[in-house]
Amino acid sequence: MNGTVDSNVFELTCDLIARRSITTEDAGCQALIAERLERAGFRCEHLRFGQTDNLWATHGTGGPVLILLGHTDVVPPGPIEQWTSDPFVPTVRDGNLYGRGAADMKGSVAAFVIALERFVAEHPDHPGTVGLLLTSDEEGDAIDGVPKVANLFRERGQRIDWCITGEPSSKATLGDLLRVGRRGTLSATLTVKGIQGHVAYPDKARNPIHQAMPALAELAARRWDEGYENFPATSLQISNIHAGTGANNVIPGELQAMFNLRFNPNWRAEQLEAECAAILDRHGLEYDLRWHRGGEPFYTPEGPLRAAAREVLTAFAGTPPEENTAGGTSDARFIAPLGAQCIEIGPVNASIHKVDEHVSVADLQRLPDLYRTLIGKMLQVG
Amino acid sequence: MNGTVDSNVFELTCDLIARRSITTEDAGCQALIAERLERAGFRCEHLRFGQTDNLWATHGTGGPVLILLGHTDVVPPGPIEQWTSDPFVPTVRDGNLYGRGAADMKGSVAAFVIALERFVAEHPDHPGTVGLLLTSDEEGDAIDGVPKVANLFRERGQRIDWCITGEPSSKATLGDLLRVGRRGTLSATLTVKGIQGHVAYPDKARNPIHQAMPALAELAARRWDEGYENFPATSLQISNIHAGTGANNVIPGELQAMFNLRFNPNWRAEQLEAECAAILDRHGLEYDLRWHRGGEPFYTPEGPLRAAAREVLTAFAGTPPEENTAGGTSDARFIAPLGAQCIEIGPVNASIHKVDEHVSVADLQRLPDLYRTLIGKMLQVG
Repeated sequence: MNGTVDSNVFELTCDLIARRSITTEDAGCQALIAERLERAGFRCEHLRFGQTDNLWATHGTGGPVLILLGHTDVVPPGPIEQWTSDPFVPTVRDGNLYGRGAADMKGSVAAFVIALERFVAEHPDHPGTVGLLLTSDEEGDAIDGVPKVANLFRERGQRIDWCITGEPSSKATLGDLLRVGRRGTLSATLTVKGIQGHVAYPDKARNPIHQAMPALAELAARRWDEGYENFPATSLQISNIHAGTGANNVIPGELQAMFNLRFNPNWRAEQLEAECAAILDRHGLEYDLRWHRGGEPFYTPEGPLRAAAREVLTAFAGTPPEENTAGGTSDARFIAPLGAQCIEIGPVNASIHKVDEHVSVADLQRLPDLYRTLIGKMLQVG
Repeated sequence: MNGTVDSNVFELTCDLIARRSITTEDAGCQALIAERLERAGFRCEHLRFGQTDNLWATHGTGGPVLILLGHTDVVPPGPIEQWTSDPFVPTVRDGNLYGRGAADMKGSVAAFVIALERFVAEHPDHPGTVGLLLTSDEEGDAIDGVPKVANLFRERGQRIDWCITGEPSSKATLGDLLRVGRRGTLSATLTVKGIQGHVAYPDKARNPIHQAMPALAELAARRWDEGYENFPATSLQISNIHAGTGANNVIPGELQAMFNLRFNPNWRAEQLEAECAAILDRHGLEYDLRWHRGGEPFYTPEGPLRAAAREVLTAFAGTPPEENTAGGTSDARFIAPLGAQCIEIGPVNASIHKVDEHVSVADLQRLPDLYRTLIGKMLQVG
């Protein structure tokens, strides 16, 4: 690394943090990036769906196709008065750059841009295609962002072999973790119907709390599986339960519960839905069950991308990375079904979505080289 | 019965209904009654505690002591526009007298007064003591009403052998049911503590819904007993359960539940409290449990009062009454612990606490004679 590159990624990250791109606002981030990449020879396509901005920038032709995937939107800052400095004024203290999005993931996006600029400058005639896909709706509902672009790719027959997402995956030090998949997520809203009545006359009522309890206990206690390769076990968590009017002498007429499943590739969403319904049926409940499929799981087994990433991270961190599939979800879930191998590499995630979000300046300055090296390995140009 | 008595109880009931004595207001009902009873030779004591009026009127000296127990307060009328006529303007339609309190229990109170006036007029030197105890806080919190008077009786050493409550006990026809006790009631507010977290990382959280579910299922499923003489089985009903913020990706930090027990004399409140805590402890919950003791059960087994009441009701209704202990609670629960045998006899309860509350005019006119006959039997003067 040299001084030029250092100040380059730092300055671009600051430029991006200063733009208040609270999801689904892009606030000019993508225009700034497109302008730079066009200067570097990229073809840029602005794909706006609804209120969401998406940028699709490519260089080269044919396969293999390697894309970098990121987002320019950030979560809201939360209570401003709790921030040590303004979340939208990038500020360095004690070797860290503070600001909303510093770690999730404007630092990674800036590093992507620098890595791509350097790569095409050094290898203008590289084999295959390198691309950058950015959205402004990753932290929001993720409806008009990458899912819509993935649909477009599907229609166009756009080939994607490999996808590197810049989500902040590192735990304690940059490069200590390589994300090789994500669990699927599936949400349910359950209404159990009873018959309202007075607690003094339980025979004339049907208490939906009493009826639901054993069924919910069984759902909560069930062991769905023992894990799947790098995945933890599938897990169901009841997040909300509500019944009753506040009066202690009334048996309520209805109970509402919400639960969420995080599941590994042992399952498809429709199988889990059927299993849950079977449990509720077995308990004889009168119920209404609504599902929201948040995303199927994806997984990148051993192969060229995972091997190359491991090698690069080992060289960077000094020890081989942990390889896992934990955490929430990422937009990679929409790219994986196109047939792409997907991994995630990014900065330390300890401060994301919190007040005083920050990234280590030293880590930030190493990030472009990390991505640049991995791109070179995949396209066989060193 | 004669015409004088008929118009007497009807008019007094109407006078009481016209007084808007929404709990804990007495609205002059007790003053009206005290004036009449003093004219009849009763000693009247006005016992006001907080916002509650209580009237204690007695005639005669020494034992046995028979008291009539009632309340002058009524529940709120609810949606006035749904009433066919003004709830505080006594109105006769189709042989029924309509108005808030007609059945619960201004009709009974008026009948008490007429019965007492007649009894002492006919037997000025009757053995023992007859008394009337009225409160204006039966439909409310029942804090400053009969419980406070019962404390006073306890301090004074006031003997009470028999107590007839005028609560509307009849099901279909006047006198078809003799209430010989009431279940106890006990309420709990339960807080189960967990550790909040993200549904994607269940190992870092402790879901209070999952923890509480098996314990609550056991509480709800437990068979406490098989009943007790005239009592139904003890029953626990979970009336409220709340956890979660609405978000489906957050494991909540706390669950709140409320439950209520209606219990027969197999149990005392403290035993039930210990049993519930033992179940929660066995499931390893971290919890906070607050109890509200609404009243111990009371029961009047076979004896002179119950036998006399059965005989009088059989003569009135033509068939022996059903004898049971069902329903909510009544103020008799505060008198029974003084060592009194307690029964409840009153008009048909189908319309109580509803719009268009009413009492059959024919039933109302028979009620003074019913009470009068029973008083005479108990004091052995026919």
